[in-house]
Amino acid sequence: MISTLVAGLVLAAEGKWTPQQVLQLGPAWVKQQGFALPLSKLWDEKTQTGLLGNAVQLPGCSGSFVSKDGLLITNHHCVVGILQEHSTPQQNLGKDGFLAKTAADEKQSKAFRIQVPRRFLDVTKDVLAPMPPNPDDLARFKSVEATQKKLVADCEKQPGTRCTFAAFDGGLFFTLTEFAELTDVRLVYAPPAAVGDFGGEIDNWMWPRHSGDFSLVRVYQDGKPYQPKYFFPLSREGVKEGDAVAILGYPGTSFRAQLADEMVERQQRWFPALQSLAAEWVAIMEEEGRKSPEAAIATADDLRGLLNARKNSEGQLAGLTRGRIVEKQRTADEKVKAFAAKKPELASALEAHAGLTRLMVERTQSWDRDFLLDMAGRGARAVGWPLLIVRRSVEAQRPDAEREPGFQERDLARLRERHERDQKRYSAVVDRRLFLSWVKRALALPKDQRSPAIDAVFAPLKDDAAIVKKLGELVAASKVVDLEQRKKMFDETPDQLKARKDPLLDLGLALDAERRVLRDRREAFSGRVLKLRPAWRRAVIAEAGKPVAPDANSSLRVSFGKVKGYSPKEAVLMTPVTTLGGAMAKHTGVEPFDLPARIREVYAAGKHEQVPVNFLADCDTTGGNSGSPMIDGRGRLVGVNFDRVWENVANDFGYNPEVARNVSADVRYLLWLLTSVEGANDLVRELTAAPG
Amino acid sequence: MISTLVAGLVLAAEGKWTPQQVLQLGPAWVKQQGFALPLSKLWDEKTQTGLLGNAVQLPGCSGSFVSKDGLLITNHHCVVGILQEHSTPQQNLGKDGFLAKTAADEKQSKAFRIQVPRRFLDVTKDVLAPMPPNPDDLARFKSVEATQKKLVADCEKQPGTRCTFAAFDGGLFFTLTEFAELTDVRLVYAPPAAVGDFGGEIDNWMWPRHSGDFSLVRVYQDGKPYQPKYFFPLSREGVKEGDAVAILGYPGTSFRAQLADEMVERQQRWFPALQSLAAEWVAIMEEEGRKSPEAAIATADDLRGLLNARKNSEGQLAGLTRGRIVEKQRTADEKVKAFAAKKPELASALEAHAGLTRLMVERTQSWDRDFLLDMAGRGARAVGWPLLIVRRSVEAQRPDAEREPGFQERDLARLRERHERDQKRYSAVVDRRLFLSWVKRALALPKDQRSPAIDAVFAPLKDDAAIVKKLGELVAASKVVDLEQRKKMFDETPDQLKARKDPLLDLGLALDAERRVLRDRREAFSGRVLKLRPAWRRAVIAEAGKPVAPDANSSLRVSFGKVKGYSPKEAVLMTPVTTLGGAMAKHTGVEPFDLPARIREVYAAGKHEQVPVNFLADCDTTGGNSGSPMIDGRGRLVGVNFDRVWENVANDFGYNPEVARNVSADVRYLLWLLTSVEGANDLVRELTAAPG
Repeated sequence: MISTLVAGLVLAAEGKWTPQQVLQLGPAWVKQQGFALPLSKLWDEKTQTGLLGNAVQLPGCSGSFVSKDGLLITNHHCVVGILQEHSTPQQNLGKDGFLAKTAADEKQSKAFRIQVPRRFLDVTKDVLAPMPPNPDDLARFKSVEATQKKLVADCEKQPGTRCTFAAFDGGLFFTLTEFAELTDVRLVYAPPAAVGDFGGEIDNWMWPRHSGDFSLVRVYQDGKPYQPKYFFPLSREGVKEGDAVAILGYPGTSFRAQLADEMVERQQRWFPALQSLAAEWVAIMEEEGRKSPEAAIATADDLRGLLNARKNSEGQLAGLTRGRIVEKQRTADEKVKAFAAKKPELASALEAHAGLTRLMVERTQSWDRDFLLDMAGRGARAVGWPLLIVRRSVEAQRPDAEREPGFQERDLARLRERHERDQKRYSAVVDRRLFLSWVKRALALPKDQRSPAIDAVFAPLKDDAAIVKKLGELVAASKVVDLEQRKKMFDETPDQLKARKDPLLDLGLALDAERRVLRDRREAFSGRVLKLRPAWRRAVIAEAGKPVAPDANSSLRVSFGKVKGYSPKEAVLMTPVTTLGGAMAKHTGVEPFDLPARIREVYAAGKHEQVPVNFLADCDTTGGNSGSPMIDGRGRLVGVNFDRVWENVANDFGYNPEVARNVSADVRYLLWLLTSVEGANDLVRELTAAPG
Repeated sequence: MISTLVAGLVLAAEGKWTPQQVLQLGPAWVKQQGFALPLSKLWDEKTQTGLLGNAVQLPGCSGSFVSKDGLLITNHHCVVGILQEHSTPQQNLGKDGFLAKTAADEKQSKAFRIQVPRRFLDVTKDVLAPMPPNPDDLARFKSVEATQKKLVADCEKQPGTRCTFAAFDGGLFFTLTEFAELTDVRLVYAPPAAVGDFGGEIDNWMWPRHSGDFSLVRVYQDGKPYQPKYFFPLSREGVKEGDAVAILGYPGTSFRAQLADEMVERQQRWFPALQSLAAEWVAIMEEEGRKSPEAAIATADDLRGLLNARKNSEGQLAGLTRGRIVEKQRTADEKVKAFAAKKPELASALEAHAGLTRLMVERTQSWDRDFLLDMAGRGARAVGWPLLIVRRSVEAQRPDAEREPGFQERDLARLRERHERDQKRYSAVVDRRLFLSWVKRALALPKDQRSPAIDAVFAPLKDDAAIVKKLGELVAASKVVDLEQRKKMFDETPDQLKARKDPLLDLGLALDAERRVLRDRREAFSGRVLKLRPAWRRAVIAEAGKPVAPDANSSLRVSFGKVKGYSPKEAVLMTPVTTLGGAMAKHTGVEPFDLPARIREVYAAGKHEQVPVNFLADCDTTGGNSGSPMIDGRGRLVGVNFDRVWENVANDFGYNPEVARNVSADVRYLLWLLTSVEGANDLVRELTAAPG
């Protein structure tokens, strides 16, 4: 009895729950988590109302309203786009930060959009009904894709509406979420990068952290501050060790439903390959960045992304080993198989397990080539841009409903917005070296996995020098790197593109054909998974005998936890709260540990050591939870989630209660910055005013 | 009252006390430290008896007897010499470890000597009495040096006796310690390097540690096991967090009596210069070691020493900054000055402070050149060997009593023992590059600090290539690197050496002349310090109003402390005990984290996770305390000291109670190794038998 209870308590924080699941878990369960707010206030399925509705989706991030007049809080790193948009050679908002003294000073973004959830629908029946009888794998996939498009298109006929479709447990059920899309977003406050990104790449994933990773925007509708249905006022009391909290948001992707053998593919192929590629590209960018400030500025964001990918891969690999996650998954898989073997109604689960395992073997056969084709658009823009243009052009020839998701009419505004941004990130010298890196990897593929498109151009060349020369000729003869030309190409037909006889476009056309073959094959695989995974997951859930949180899929989730430290290794304990005193102790005056002079002056003038800066909790999070609200049991905002600890990177594969910790910026740090450093008392009043 | 009490408790662990000082502090004070053993058992001044007598001095280390039949325990790294001595191409004792099953199997060392203290004498009056009236600086120094030699020589007339002279507080008082020297030392047990040096250079100074840094030797006298007056039986109970402990041993050097400006010299000149030189020499050895296994083997010990010096310098610099040690020392100095200013009898302290400060300025004028001359013998043996031979030859011309300490008759056996050892450590290719490194640094000295000896040979050469060629010619034409020739040279007169027309000896003669000028100047400086420092320290002690522990000087000291964790930085707590489970978690199978298969098998077969491996305490230690016994309040051995934590490296300049932690290997790990892994039950019985 005691051991069950303890196990129950220890594991309580596991699970990124859907709103429906929280209702299934019930009010007693929520209370058992130590969370004071009654479940009915969190979510009411019938009326589709409750505080969960204040989980706002931003591009790649989450956020929440924090005032009745449309103030929204998220991470500093989630509004980098707005900061760049309004930066000039004279004023670098990213570096210097920004505070709008009045509404008139707020900086409107041209491209930043947010989505406020309005309605959650289970559309499983809608997806399964139109499925043809006994479809083959591709037909099954196509049927779901067609339904998805139709549901989304119908839903988005309502003005100012954005709708997202999501599959759970590989197709066990499907949902449609209807959002109000708000496009008038104005920057109110961002701290200097020296605060919002304090510790930079060195502290990234590394507790103890001391980052003020906050930003505030105000959302407008029809020219007036948006009046959200719910908001979380900032708590001046904050939280302390042991306090219960909940996090709301849109976690992106996790892999806990994978079979052990599928995890092995991640462990033995994907992460090592990604790490190797990222390491090579990082080295190129760092080397060229040292030689040229222009290259350093242009590649800063790409470099940050690659560094993050590399560090993440290292963390995933370390965590998979540390947590013995594959071994544990194998044991869990076997348990489910044994369970299913005894229940005739779960017979299909055993076939599904065998089928998914066979699929892994099939996917492995051309793994290296497929990986490089996937990465083609991620390195050199001389490859990525043609691939984007060609895909867009090919898809434009079909009726909108039949286009590949991401290239439909509803996606074009977003794609067009990237033209300028991507141009700023282009460095010719870096791009040439990334191109060379990728081509050489393609030329090193085993015989049975060659890329004809690459071989046709590069295989005859005798050495690196010849390849470098060739790359130079291709780029010189191409108009793809020219912004205005590229914008034109974006709306041309494939024939028009071919007629240009642009060598990079021609390479793009040839590579796109190969990538389409790969996509078709993958769609058939996905169709097979749509059949197998649900059969397997049904057995997993039956064996568990209680709700099982599905993998993250960018849909709304909530996780309950407690403010809590952890032990990364024997004899080392991490306590869960850091303070301004700790940030000052890290201050060296050298980036990324260079607190602004103003903060140091204020600090020196008074007793500010104890201002809380960051805290740990054992909430279950992943990428996409950046900016997620951390609320206390009274529905007040206590923190803004911005990181996980290093030992917890591999929680994407399995929740390890001993090290599963998310990192939040304490709102009391924000209130201190606004009060003691900025003197923005009106803003503080607005942020701390309770709902009327 | 409360604050005084707390401050008293917090600072209690500070102080490497002399036996006399512990008596001054008194029995109540010892009890207040939580230490159960009565002071009278620790030391009785009159009879010169007590457990402190079981602090045994080894070359560069400390140790203690642990059985009535002469078993002595120290660190694994303190007996590397014996392990090398008995290793063959077939059996590498350092790597594989060693256990003598019977007395007949014990491996006797030709060179290892230990010193057991017999008598402690205050010789301050003997030193001051023969001092001429109003001596100049050099005369003062020479007088003390002459007395020192005489006292030592007289003392060592007793057979089997070794005597060491020590100055305290820069000359405030002087002691002579009389030791029984025992030369028949036989190896009984050393764990494999994978246990004794587990974690290697990576874990060095880095808590948490998991090293079984133990060894056991048996000391013989007249062919029979030596019967020590005292021994510490090993405790099977061990210690836990909060328990009181004491450490005995011979800490080498510390710098806490320095003025703030003297510490600035360490901080701004010495450690950065040492770090730079060590880094360059490390790079050379690592590069050549990668190319050639012979070079790697030959330079292994030198490389280890340099890595340690480099890491230590980094730690000292980081710790000086972290602990704000110079600033604190300046405040302390000012407080003493203010105190002395009010007491006429301490007027000389103010002059002393001014005089010591002026001396720093004088020493600074040729700092860079002096540093390189000091380091001349530490890098290339092509320079170091000639310097040793020449010095020995010059000193041999004088009566023994007038020779430089280290080159007297009493030192010759030790010097001769180094011939073979040093030859094994010689790699021609590495040595040539170290030589080049040093010469280039000498050629880069500012104009007013040149070395004529170096300029004469190398200044005319136009570039590096010419210097390299010249170095090759010098070495090729020299006999110094030939072991047999070098042994002969060691006993030749300066004229004989000159007559050899050996170019390296000639360079050595010229450099030795420069070093003698430097030494003469330093002896005058030392003479001045002999006058100034005691005057200053007298004021420091008067101001403190209680015993002040003098700086470490290789004399016997005891420090009291508690088993205790620490916080290296905000939100990180180090707990004070590590276990075998933690060592297993570090095991990767790759050096230095490669536990022997036998240990892993035993571990896997039973419940051994909780075997204690290492522990922290806040005892006050430094280099020389390696192998020091850690005893509990019942006089039982609970650990063998082997390291400090990284944050505590700078405690040589000031004790910071927050991070001052020494690291010990828990004797329960040794008992487990001997019992569960080696089955050495007789040995375990001997080690745990209480004194009869």
